[in-house]
Amino acid sequence: MPVRFSPDGQWYRCESGETILQVAERAGVDLERVCGGRGTCGKCRVIVTDGIVSAITDTERASLTNQEQSQGYRLACQVLLAADEAVTVQVPEEARRGQVQVLATGIGSDQPLDPWVTTHHLTVAPAGLDDQTADLDAVERAWQDSQTEPLDLTLRALRQLPAALRSDDGRITLIRSDQKVISVSPGHTVAPVLGLACDIGTTTVVGYLMNLATGEELAVASELNPQTRHGDNVISRVQFADETAQGLATLQSEIAGALNRILAETTARAGHTPEDVSAMVIVGNTTMQHLVLGISPAYLAQSPYVPGYTSAQQVRACELGLLCHPDACVWLLPNIAGWVGADTLAVILSTGIHEEDQPALAIDIGTNGEMAMGSRERLITCSTAAGPAFEGAHISSGMRAADGALDQLVFDQDVHWHALGNGAPRGICGSGLVDAVSEMVRTGVIDGQGRLQSPEVLAANGHPALARRVSGEGRQRSFELVTAEEGANGHAVRLTQRDIRELQLAKGAVRAGIEILLQELGIQKEAIRKVFLAGAFGNYISPTSALGIGLLPEFPHAALIPVGNAAGSGARMALLSRSLRDKGSQILQHVEYLELSARQDFQDRFVEAMLFHR
Amino acid sequence: MPVRFSPDGQWYRCESGETILQVAERAGVDLERVCGGRGTCGKCRVIVTDGIVSAITDTERASLTNQEQSQGYRLACQVLLAADEAVTVQVPEEARRGQVQVLATGIGSDQPLDPWVTTHHLTVAPAGLDDQTADLDAVERAWQDSQTEPLDLTLRALRQLPAALRSDDGRITLIRSDQKVISVSPGHTVAPVLGLACDIGTTTVVGYLMNLATGEELAVASELNPQTRHGDNVISRVQFADETAQGLATLQSEIAGALNRILAETTARAGHTPEDVSAMVIVGNTTMQHLVLGISPAYLAQSPYVPGYTSAQQVRACELGLLCHPDACVWLLPNIAGWVGADTLAVILSTGIHEEDQPALAIDIGTNGEMAMGSRERLITCSTAAGPAFEGAHISSGMRAADGALDQLVFDQDVHWHALGNGAPRGICGSGLVDAVSEMVRTGVIDGQGRLQSPEVLAANGHPALARRVSGEGRQRSFELVTAEEGANGHAVRLTQRDIRELQLAKGAVRAGIEILLQELGIQKEAIRKVFLAGAFGNYISPTSALGIGLLPEFPHAALIPVGNAAGSGARMALLSRSLRDKGSQILQHVEYLELSARQDFQDRFVEAMLFHR
Repeated sequence: MPVRFSPDGQWYRCESGETILQVAERAGVDLERVCGGRGTCGKCRVIVTDGIVSAITDTERASLTNQEQSQGYRLACQVLLAADEAVTVQVPEEARRGQVQVLATGIGSDQPLDPWVTTHHLTVAPAGLDDQTADLDAVERAWQDSQTEPLDLTLRALRQLPAALRSDDGRITLIRSDQKVISVSPGHTVAPVLGLACDIGTTTVVGYLMNLATGEELAVASELNPQTRHGDNVISRVQFADETAQGLATLQSEIAGALNRILAETTARAGHTPEDVSAMVIVGNTTMQHLVLGISPAYLAQSPYVPGYTSAQQVRACELGLLCHPDACVWLLPNIAGWVGADTLAVILSTGIHEEDQPALAIDIGTNGEMAMGSRERLITCSTAAGPAFEGAHISSGMRAADGALDQLVFDQDVHWHALGNGAPRGICGSGLVDAVSEMVRTGVIDGQGRLQSPEVLAANGHPALARRVSGEGRQRSFELVTAEEGANGHAVRLTQRDIRELQLAKGAVRAGIEILLQELGIQKEAIRKVFLAGAFGNYISPTSALGIGLLPEFPHAALIPVGNAAGSGARMALLSRSLRDKGSQILQHVEYLELSARQDFQDRFVEAMLFHR
Repeated sequence: MPVRFSPDGQWYRCESGETILQVAERAGVDLERVCGGRGTCGKCRVIVTDGIVSAITDTERASLTNQEQSQGYRLACQVLLAADEAVTVQVPEEARRGQVQVLATGIGSDQPLDPWVTTHHLTVAPAGLDDQTADLDAVERAWQDSQTEPLDLTLRALRQLPAALRSDDGRITLIRSDQKVISVSPGHTVAPVLGLACDIGTTTVVGYLMNLATGEELAVASELNPQTRHGDNVISRVQFADETAQGLATLQSEIAGALNRILAETTARAGHTPEDVSAMVIVGNTTMQHLVLGISPAYLAQSPYVPGYTSAQQVRACELGLLCHPDACVWLLPNIAGWVGADTLAVILSTGIHEEDQPALAIDIGTNGEMAMGSRERLITCSTAAGPAFEGAHISSGMRAADGALDQLVFDQDVHWHALGNGAPRGICGSGLVDAVSEMVRTGVIDGQGRLQSPEVLAANGHPALARRVSGEGRQRSFELVTAEEGANGHAVRLTQRDIRELQLAKGAVRAGIEILLQELGIQKEAIRKVFLAGAFGNYISPTSALGIGLLPEFPHAALIPVGNAAGSGARMALLSRSLRDKGSQILQHVEYLELSARQDFQDRFVEAMLFHR
């Protein structure tokens, strides 16, 4: 029993050469691992407080500051264990994934495990000349002895029945995915029943392989949404689907391909095959939900922004070209409206905001910015065209959160930065952008209107080092975050006046959305007790910086709760529990949607919210 | 209005160059056309009583006797019409297909048209910024205004919805196949809703293309079951499925291929495409029903003869590789037992024997011989291994009812024969065999034990011409039906002693089955009021000859009612009427099955029934 994760305390077995991350996965300790364990994201930080492990690597040195290294920080994906060495690992709160906290408010605590994919062992009496009962009827008879729901076999399962029944003296194992028996195999087998929970983001697709009998997460994999080759935002996808021959079919098969690779990767890691996956839950924004089904999203993108459907959809995997069990039930959580999708519904489901006694806010910043505010009394959602800037799009030096992206910045007399991966900085991602602008506001590099100040003004205000980083005039004025000497290939990384305007538009939209929701509910900021920060917020963006740029107002009585990929957590919960899955449809009846584009007061708030004042 | 079919009376339009058969099809006059209108079967006999038509052809002369020609008989498939000539055609009862009579006792009379494939016109109000109702929800709202059943769209239909809704101001047409909407198209269209009723015989596959809104039959096509290449009987198919790699899949795709060709042929003749077919009903014996679904029939062929399923099965066309509408509901009527299939259930359905007040018998001789006896009180079915001999199998000169087959024989001082098609006789088919043996019994060519008499005995009994046809001794003794001069390629057509034994086995099994059913019901022959003759009986075998060889006992108070392909009629009824379709499953609860193979008294009766005595 050589590895213990504090503060949990329990011991877990490991084998020689395993990493801390691998044991943590088995132990259900849910560490951040954005890069999939390749050592590039630097998120899976732990401290080895006791025991002997492998020496620190160059990869770790590139991700950890000298101070962190001296404090004993290591990357869990890089540290190798010996089977006979007892090791104690401290897991800092920031290295734990959001959904652990979310699950604690959901299925982990008061929700019973209530799977809708189940295995059943039946023993069927043999037929004889005096009882020529058909195989299917005999199985139905045995089924009715133990179950009340009707037995319904898919054609594929029915084809398996006659031989299975005669292979092991009438003992068979059924796998039932929702209403349908999808598999009949000989004997009373105990193979785990697997499911995949998927979050299809505009940019990233994530899949969680789950053991549906135990609720255990077996593996996680993610990849860039292959549709990004047609554009980085939802509108570009809609246009591609609408205007290109076979565009819709192309987008559908691209997303199915991504899900199939995730199926292959996660099942291989867990020692299974994709065909062992008997159910899937899919969440995503409304456009992604349309595209994975092959339904045209054309009318989502033009006024009055009407989706093809919103209700929960249930299809068989083979209908979507998914290479898990062909009859696996694929459940798509409902969408709330054209611009508030199943991903937001999953955030509501996993945060439990629909059951809060006191008003709360859940805000999910991905490629778009969706939010839900309210309580069990009343819950309102809206969407703001916020996202791309926070993912580095439309920013001159913007890039995704990949190797070489500035992700954290602090200003004192001068600029201090941190970049992802091993190389020199190449650009800036969303969290870096929010940090940078927040620090520029705090130090007066930009004023309340968002104007970059001149070097003269900055020098006069006692910031000579910062002043030297400003150059140019007007809209071309820029601020050098990383010098040409520091940057990759001798290129500086700069923020321009235009970049700051872009961020102002984005943050103004989100902030105005929050204000309108408060107004619509007739409450003040003081009434909000919890703020769930999901998506880019939960994973990357510093809440302090978000407050710094006024993306969020100060909620004096609210706890700020990062919940990571709360949409993915909602998908996993719906996969593990029929009642939670069906609760998705109940929430749909309860939740309201506010169309902001039609409101004059939103426009007014928006103009106000673009300003910077703390 | 140039063609009138008496005794019906109504006038139907024709175009120049159309045949009487073509107009008859349109007019719903259901003529026999075993050969598909090629002039070879000689079944579509009509008499032109008024008007001028094309002259008699050599093809007709080959099929019609001189006497028939002098009576004005013509073949409806050969007679060409002129558009401006009024013609009256008398249709003799024997030229009408059995199912016309059957339908009269079924859907034609007291059964309302009750289709389970329906079209619906909806008009959906346009969305606006103040009402962003999703397309699917808006359609559901419009649906609920007019219908009580829930609306359930297939994924393909859902994909059609957004564009269809915006093409014609919210007017859409839905096609619903059973519980599912399978098609959404723009506008309020009135295209006919089509269905195909299929009877999959071991030897022949027949499909009837029906207009489901009117009940009209639009076209019929048939072909040899392509599985016959693996053997002419059910057991050979089961063995092929069980013992050959991919055998089951091969048989499934062969039968699907045959159905696809029939779909293509019938829809082309009616001016449609296969994709316009929105529903199918399939009947066949239990093995064929298993094979079309791709379910192994292995356990049907070995004691205790247990089928994989018996209940009605409902699948989507795409699951079987059928190229009609991919979501078309394909309904397989239930099987009664391993050796009494959905075809027999369809015979029961179409003859209405399950609703008779007085005992009746329905007997269907195809490749096997299935029968049902009883009334609304109690109905028993059984199967006898009767068939192959009646289809020419296991007979030395045996052949299918194709060109060159002796199909009718009469003996007086010598033998008179009729062969199908234009050429010289090549062999003998089932109806010819029954005629021949019946005449041999009547004239004393064979005795009560079935022994071929010697030439000396026949000459002594005053049959010198018949005596000259006998040659050989013992099991090799044979009787020449067609001389070498008359036969094709200079070959005589003979029946051997062994052929007669083969027929005795077959007819003995059927007759013993009838006797056992009478015994089981506790009634005498005198109680039977109707005998429905289906399959080879209804179409080909002369009832007189059947009585002559003792295949049937004399039923002194029974009407003998030829019902042609009553299984196909049952399939058509189930396709046109939900209540009749569902009645199939009710009958399954009511009907009993008798396994003859296990009964000693069947063996005893069988030995007795092989003898010939009138």
